[in-house]
Amino acid sequence: MNKPVPGVVDGRPTPLRRADLPAGLWSTEMHIRFGHCDPAGIVYTPKFFDIFNVVIEKWYEGALGLDYYEFIGKRRIGLGYVNAHADFFSPCTMGDTLDVAVIVERIGNSSFALRLHAFRDGTEALRGHFTVVTTDLTIHKSMPVPPDLRAALAGYAKA
Amino acid sequence: MNKPVPGVVDGRPTPLRRADLPAGLWSTEMHIRFGHCDPAGIVYTPKFFDIFNVVIEKWYEGALGLDYYEFIGKRRIGLGYVNAHADFFSPCTMGDTLDVAVIVERIGNSSFALRLHAFRDGTEALRGHFTVVTTDLTIHKSMPVPPDLRAALAGYAKA
Amino acid sequence: MNKPVPGVVDGRPTPLRRADLPAGLWSTEMHIRFGHCDPAGIVYTPKFFDIFNVVIEKWYEGALGLDYYEFIGKRRIGLGYVNAHADFFSPCTMGDTLDVAVIVERIGNSSFALRLHAFRDGTEALRGHFTVVTTDLTIHKSMPVPPDLRAALAGYAKA
Amino acid sequence: MNKPVPGVVDGRPTPLRRADLPAGLWSTEMHIRFGHCDPAGIVYTPKFFDIFNVVIEKWYEGALGLDYYEFIGKRRIGLGYVNAHADFFSPCTMGDTLDVAVIVERIGNSSFALRLHAFRDGTEALRGHFTVVTTDLTIHKSMPVPPDLRAALAGYAKA
Repeated sequence: MNKPVPGVVDGRPTPLRRADLPAGLWSTEMHIRFGHCDPAGIVYTPKFFDIFNVVIEKWYEGALGLDYYEFIGKRRIGLGYVNAHADFFSPCTMGDTLDVAVIVERIGNSSFALRLHAFRDGTEALRGHFTVVTTDLTIHKSMPVPPDLRAALAGYAKA
Repeated sequence: MNKPVPGVVDGRPTPLRRADLPAGLWSTEMHIRFGHCDPAGIVYTPKFFDIFNVVIEKWYEGALGLDYYEFIGKRRIGLGYVNAHADFFSPCTMGDTLDVAVIVERIGNSSFALRLHAFRDGTEALRGHFTVVTTDLTIHKSMPVPPDLRAALAGYAKA
Repeated sequence: MNKPVPGVVDGRPTPLRRADLPAGLWSTEMHIRFGHCDPAGIVYTPKFFDIFNVVIEKWYEGALGLDYYEFIGKRRIGLGYVNAHADFFSPCTMGDTLDVAVIVERIGNSSFALRLHAFRDGTEALRGHFTVVTTDLTIHKSMPVPPDLRAALAGYAKA
Repeated sequence: MNKPVPGVVDGRPTPLRRADLPAGLWSTEMHIRFGHCDPAGIVYTPKFFDIFNVVIEKWYEGALGLDYYEFIGKRRIGLGYVNAHADFFSPCTMGDTLDVAVIVERIGNSSFALRLHAFRDGTEALRGHFTVVTTDLTIHKSMPVPPDLRAALAGYAKA
């Protein structure tokens, strides 16, 4: 990443306000449920990665107009991660509603990078970074990003 | 982190061999189960963070001689994360056994950083990075690392 | 249960049609996600119990007008189960949408029984049975169903 | 089930002592982890079904001498459930160790029934019932229990 990332000050992630991102940016609501939370009363960290994955699934359909499940199922194209990262700014608990926006950071040959900003009441509670690699699921090797997905990503990144 | 991290070449994580880490380093076996895996036939990414958390729980008891559950429960001291990161080198599937080692990277005032290396058949399959922040669970504010935990972390890091 | 249960023939559960239940009965949509599914390509059984729990959480708010999270959190009243049961009529997979209805089967002194019917395209795919026991979470002992919850359950059961 | 089930009094499940089951019966230890538990401080119900599934996976290998993962993976034979049931006698929390025994209740043409008793400190904390149906995963239809599995089940049930 060479371009400045919003919400990073001196290399350290700092929470954004929703208004710091473009108003028309696609986002989706996620509800924090009882089963997401642990005996400390807050979301169990691995569950945030599950929540982010659901956001990404919804984003394929809602923002890219593509069917995540058809990629994995019928087309046998994997959309897994070579890395996954999250920064947690404030704890979330059951009953909270998050508004999660997705940004395409980079589109490579057989991979692309996504950044997810999760807001609660307008302030960023956590942020995720995922590098997706497209793979042929029959041989579990990376493959070029399929043309329809590449076009959709590029269109989304431009808008 | 100013000291070089094993398994990072030109800033890019690359898989280690188990022999690249000290022979006596604490590690624990984790088994990949059916329920860890997804329709792509490999471990669902969020489940790796759950696996890493179980490793950390076992490490508190097995390597530090401390009871993770007593911290959260009786002492009401949170051991949550301000960030969590994983690099995935090769896919894991049900039936695999991972040998996971824990390294203390840094001990701060109210936080410390852990690095987890997960090996399958002697080669690193994935790596985790977690920054733990100790919190007072009654007010959800950070607090200094408790003396017994600090001493155990320092002793482990030295060994 | 002395009254006949819809969808049980000779003691054996058989799938209902949505039209077999009252038209105005409260129900909610649940989406089957990638992370719900296993390497057999269908929902991992334990995830159905998670899905049912989310339905119940939504039902408290949407149908009873009560806040599930406030019971557990502020009021420290547990809404756990003494038993949980599910019958699976046909496999569900990622991308499926379920419409799940809740029926109050029985209201006792310190417990009540719920039945959940999950329909896909109008045909029941699975059914759940849960006996909820209200507990005092500070001492983990059962307690009478609180008056506001009892009234809401009775009102729902009547309608 | 026509034969009496241990731990059922007047049709109501009641907790057994470990000594009520045969001494030589196969069982395995399961540890309750932080991520199994919810904000009520006890195991989140769906997680018990995950724990039971892991027990069953270990039981295939440890008691039947068969590889659960090979059935699902290479042989494409599903071992899913047509029903799943659990009775909860006392709450479990992080740090608990369960000793879980498996009993084969019934072997049918294309299905079989398992009963799992989970003991904590010698007293049954919960019990599970699962009816497994063997399916051809390419067409998602039931199929006869494969001969090697049938023989192993019959041998285990006899012992």
